Amino acid sequence: MSPAQSRSDAIQDHYPDEVAHCFGCGRLNPRGHGLRTRWSDGGTVATFTPEAHHTAIPGYVYGGLLASLVDCHGTGSAAAAAAREAGWEPGRTPPPEVPRFVTGRLDVEFRKPTPLGPELRLRGRIREAGERKVVVEVTVQAEGETTVRGTVIAVRMPDEMLRRLEEDAG
Amino acid sequence: MSPAQSRSDAIQDHYPDEVAHCFGCGRLNPRGHGLRTRWSDGGTVATFTPEAHHTAIPGYVYGGLLASLVDCHGTGSAAAAAAREAGWEPGRTPPPEVPRFVTGRLDVEFRKPTPLGPELRLRGRIREAGERKVVVEVTVQAEGETTVRGTVIAVRMPDEMLRRLEEDAG
Repeated sequence: MSPAQSRSDAIQDHYPDEVAHCFGCGRLNPRGHGLRTRWSDGGTVATFTPEAHHTAIPGYVYGGLLASLVDCHGTGSAAAAAAREAGWEPGRTPPPEVPRFVTGRLDVEFRKPTPLGPELRLRGRIREAGERKVVVEVTVQAEGETTVRGTVIAVRMPDEMLRRLEEDAG
Repeated sequence: MSPAQSRSDAIQDHYPDEVAHCFGCGRLNPRGHGLRTRWSDGGTVATFTPEAHHTAIPGYVYGGLLASLVDCHGTGSAAAAAAREAGWEPGRTPPPEVPRFVTGRLDVEFRKPTPLGPELRLRGRIREAGERKVVVEVTVQAEGETTVRGTVIAVRMPDEMLRRLEEDAG
């Protein structure tokens, strides 16, 4: 890991290589969306600009993409919260520990159509933080307006699963 | 529309051109997933084989993709149900009417990791069918095992929105 990467304030830059291939947010998936989750004002933020083919009906963003962004920002927020709890100072130190979370449940409410074109801004708030389960509320804003609200129940990946992946990779 | 297309048993083949660009299921989106929803045994079915880069953690399907498939199969099922209600005989006649639904709410439960590789099989069941709102339950199966359960609240696209899209396209 480069010194710049070790100081990155985006939690996904610190995921172990074995679990950094997520299509939505893995830095090692060259065909993926590359979402990055950062701390800001007691919550998390991420930005994403959909491409022209990410259409629902013409002029609006595909709902499946919006659900994906909520999902990845949710698990990223859960990991960032756990890393901070363990002493991480984003942008200054590498996290002492980077737990990886997967999604147990995803609930997304499409409140109004999301215009296709502008950068989207995601915000996350930790609503419940347990050792194994973290509940994150996520909003998506376009041009200052909240178009989507979601809740992610993120579940900590069991250590033995992570070990198995490391063994497979090794 | 070709005679073959007019007799297609997949509802998405009958969406008006103006609303057939969905990344998940629009026949006019060459970069999209092209999901197709068909009637079978009083419910709906669709199949999809994820590609190698649709990774969550290695070996498993990206949750955002699974949510997308549930979403599109849900709105497709709602449209198929409404078209059948209006007299459509899938595979024999073109639908007399093809209402287009959008997603109001999407709730997805990831019950176990979905293996990446095998063809996925989606099933839809109409749980509530109103004029404006249709509730669809969707499951995803891999190798005969249900890995994901979701509920889609599909909302009928207002006629004036459809007309505006037609005018824009014309």
